[in-house]
Amino acid sequence: MAIEPDPQLERMRASIDNIDAALVHLLAERFKITQAVGEYKASAGLPPADPAREDAQIARLRALAVESGLDPSFTEQFLRFIVAEVIHHHQRIAAGDRDLDGGAR
Amino acid sequence: MAIEPDPQLERMRASIDNIDAALVHLLAERFKITQAVGEYKASAGLPPADPAREDAQIARLRALAVESGLDPSFTEQFLRFIVAEVIHHHQRIAAGDRDLDGGAR
Repeated sequence: MAIEPDPQLERMRASIDNIDAALVHLLAERFKITQAVGEYKASAGLPPADPAREDAQIARLRALAVESGLDPSFTEQFLRFIVAEVIHHHQRIAAGDRDLDGGAR
Repeated sequence: MAIEPDPQLERMRASIDNIDAALVHLLAERFKITQAVGEYKASAGLPPADPAREDAQIARLRALAVESGLDPSFTEQFLRFIVAEVIHHHQRIAAGDRDLDGGAR
């Protein structure tokens, strides 16, 4: 069944699409930096995960979430989701797999 | 055990923190818009989830991910993670809970 286009819904969705493009590009930059962090940690013999750093990030982002009207619990889940991917990359770097390309697998 | 501060690591982490602040603020804006979408859908009697729209978003973001050097699979997981939260909000709006505040629970 074809659904009629709805101009009001389409306008809101266009804004969501713009924000999503910005999110993807920021995430790409973030993984470039964490890639460099991973290589640096591997060369310095530092462990891939850093629970104290992660706790500090979560506390800071929860506070930013409250300021900006975002759910702090969702924000914490969001950071943990990204950090899990980063640690996965760092473990691969530490294991000697240098073929990662800016966060791509 | 205290760990010595490492200037190179701290510099990279400061950039990650800046990107994370931007991500949180963009997500806050995104949930403001999806909140409006949810209210509009509820008033128009549209269902909270829209699988065809979701498929189109995923295809678009996977393409943007490839362009920007991000893992397309991770990007898809990322969108599904956010959309799951949005649908949860929309279900609450459809159920008559109007106390959501810009994505806050």
